[in-house]
Amino acid sequence: MDDKLLLMIPGPTPVPERVLQAMARGPMEHRSKEFTSILLDVTENLRWLHQTRSDVYIFSASGTGAMEAGMINVLSPGDRVLCGVNGKFGERWADLADTFGLQCERIETPWGQPYPVEVFAEKLQTDTEKTIKAIILTHSETSSAVANDVQTLSALAREHGEALVIVDGVTSIGCMNLPMDEWGVDIVASGSQKGYMMPPGLGFVAVSERAQEAAKHSRFPKYYWSFAQARKDLAKGTTPFTPSVNLIYGLQVGLEMMKKEGLEAIFARHRQLGAATRAGVKALNLKLLAPESSASEAVTAVLAPEGIDADKIRSVLKKQFDIATAAGQDHLKGKIFRIGHLGFVSGRDILMTLACLEVALQQVGYSNFVPGASTEAARQHLS
Amino acid sequence: MDDKLLLMIPGPTPVPERVLQAMARGPMEHRSKEFTSILLDVTENLRWLHQTRSDVYIFSASGTGAMEAGMINVLSPGDRVLCGVNGKFGERWADLADTFGLQCERIETPWGQPYPVEVFAEKLQTDTEKTIKAIILTHSETSSAVANDVQTLSALAREHGEALVIVDGVTSIGCMNLPMDEWGVDIVASGSQKGYMMPPGLGFVAVSERAQEAAKHSRFPKYYWSFAQARKDLAKGTTPFTPSVNLIYGLQVGLEMMKKEGLEAIFARHRQLGAATRAGVKALNLKLLAPESSASEAVTAVLAPEGIDADKIRSVLKKQFDIATAAGQDHLKGKIFRIGHLGFVSGRDILMTLACLEVALQQVGYSNFVPGASTEAARQHLS
Repeated sequence: MDDKLLLMIPGPTPVPERVLQAMARGPMEHRSKEFTSILLDVTENLRWLHQTRSDVYIFSASGTGAMEAGMINVLSPGDRVLCGVNGKFGERWADLADTFGLQCERIETPWGQPYPVEVFAEKLQTDTEKTIKAIILTHSETSSAVANDVQTLSALAREHGEALVIVDGVTSIGCMNLPMDEWGVDIVASGSQKGYMMPPGLGFVAVSERAQEAAKHSRFPKYYWSFAQARKDLAKGTTPFTPSVNLIYGLQVGLEMMKKEGLEAIFARHRQLGAATRAGVKALNLKLLAPESSASEAVTAVLAPEGIDADKIRSVLKKQFDIATAAGQDHLKGKIFRIGHLGFVSGRDILMTLACLEVALQQVGYSNFVPGASTEAARQHLS
Repeated sequence: MDDKLLLMIPGPTPVPERVLQAMARGPMEHRSKEFTSILLDVTENLRWLHQTRSDVYIFSASGTGAMEAGMINVLSPGDRVLCGVNGKFGERWADLADTFGLQCERIETPWGQPYPVEVFAEKLQTDTEKTIKAIILTHSETSSAVANDVQTLSALAREHGEALVIVDGVTSIGCMNLPMDEWGVDIVASGSQKGYMMPPGLGFVAVSERAQEAAKHSRFPKYYWSFAQARKDLAKGTTPFTPSVNLIYGLQVGLEMMKKEGLEAIFARHRQLGAATRAGVKALNLKLLAPESSASEAVTAVLAPEGIDADKIRSVLKKQFDIATAAGQDHLKGKIFRIGHLGFVSGRDILMTLACLEVALQQVGYSNFVPGASTEAARQHLS
């Protein structure tokens, strides 16, 4: 049914009407006082969202652009880094590191398992020469629905004393608690089409004072991504290059909505949505890819029943109910499907998705569950 | 007066209502068939707009991002390049080249004067060793309202045989004729907030087959900006990273409007608007910064009357009439003001701006003109 699409994918996520309407206003001069006032307002709210007193820069870019910026501004060619890899976005960090000639050690675990904190600990604690310049992490690994323990890993890096903590916060900012200053995180990269309740097109990079200091010694050439230039211009209430004026109109409204809801309430809502989704899926006797102790609150990855192609389930959900879910990526294609529950999502979206999932499962020949069990199980987490 | 703003600046430019409305639709999954169909449609129309059979890539980025991408994909550190510099955007090219360690020779003329074609010719013709890897040009120099002779310079590069032609088409694509294939241009970088009649946020890079070949040997690390990845994914109807879905909704509508108007009509309209603006300004006994033989059809730079701060004139236009004009940049600040007439602009906008300019000039103490002279002079170019 045209225009009936419901996005239950981990990005793009649903966008509130008032954000869409804000974007539909004609652009203004980006060097005007009026725009400066919007930019400063938005920047202040981004600091609030990142729980930091440091700068947060807005780039016209996807989240990957923000990741690239976060890496090349604070490191130099040949730098030794430890990179956690347990999914597609960890792979992306490692690919970025390889592309830019970092000496990248991948700390790998199978997709679906969290980082092995003890391996990071051992490497950091035995690095008496302080050759490790950064640990590079993915907070919420979107491809496998795993939340990695950024808090403990950051503490290890702070003990180490030299290693920066660079974090992909793409599906965690605005969903899961990532108090940058308190945890000692140096770089958080994210994108607008996730917890921000925005369309894609803006990349954000929060930069600690330690990272700003490191940036002074970075030997990668940088122009579009330059933090130094972004910092200088932000202090004057502007941006180095023409910003995405209309997306920033939308961002302003989205951030206001988030502020009104409050950080704690946002995190609690995502915890509820995650718990409800996982409970619903388990009540259908389906297995989760990630252990619940390391579950992302933004997305849930579900193993398709034995012998059934996950994409067939997704296809019914899309065709019959206009519900978009996400496919498994790379070697998990056809084996899992993923339900996004981040951003402008509420309990009713979960109940609806589970109810439709029951229908879809029956249609593809799986009926190893009590009809209604999933919504009943989910309901208990939604009060 | 709130919401009455008229953008007579060289970007952001006015955006048609239907483009704004298209952007206000909820986002869709960027990996869906539906979005692939939009992306392929838009790409085909971008080829049409660039008059090329080659690929045009869409980046979530500003025009400067597109420039950076266009440079680092086809060159390598230490490459010798000739860079035309006669304004702020030529400076930007040269700064980019310096930042990335190219051996950049600036071919400079004062702001307001076109490139000295003979200097390029001499350097290219005496380069028997073929050490010049690219000539880097700005077609319409937005800061000084000069159009540079890309056609002749491209022909010189083609005779040279080795040098690529890399062009900033930011305020020329969709305004002035830049037939990429016919002229032998290799890279055209542009941004959405100019002739495209779009808000800012999308950067475009058109890439000739010669440039694709050169890209295979480029030694700059690249990830977000990678043409190789963009090419591979475009062939599959997708993009390497999450695209700006909502801006691309708007782009689709804007390009349809442009196609309906037709390339020749678009160029003719901009020629009319440029001629009308210049005639109007001259009828006020004001001087143009650029010679008319090298005038950009997208923007006009006007010298303020002796002893009068150009920004005072701009201030009246903005405060009293809600017309935004652009300031002079760098050493021209206060000395010139610039009228943008590109994109979604028609003759009535020029007449209105000139009529208001007359009032503004009188208010700042300049009345060395016959009232009504500017609109009368402009009118003759608008039939």
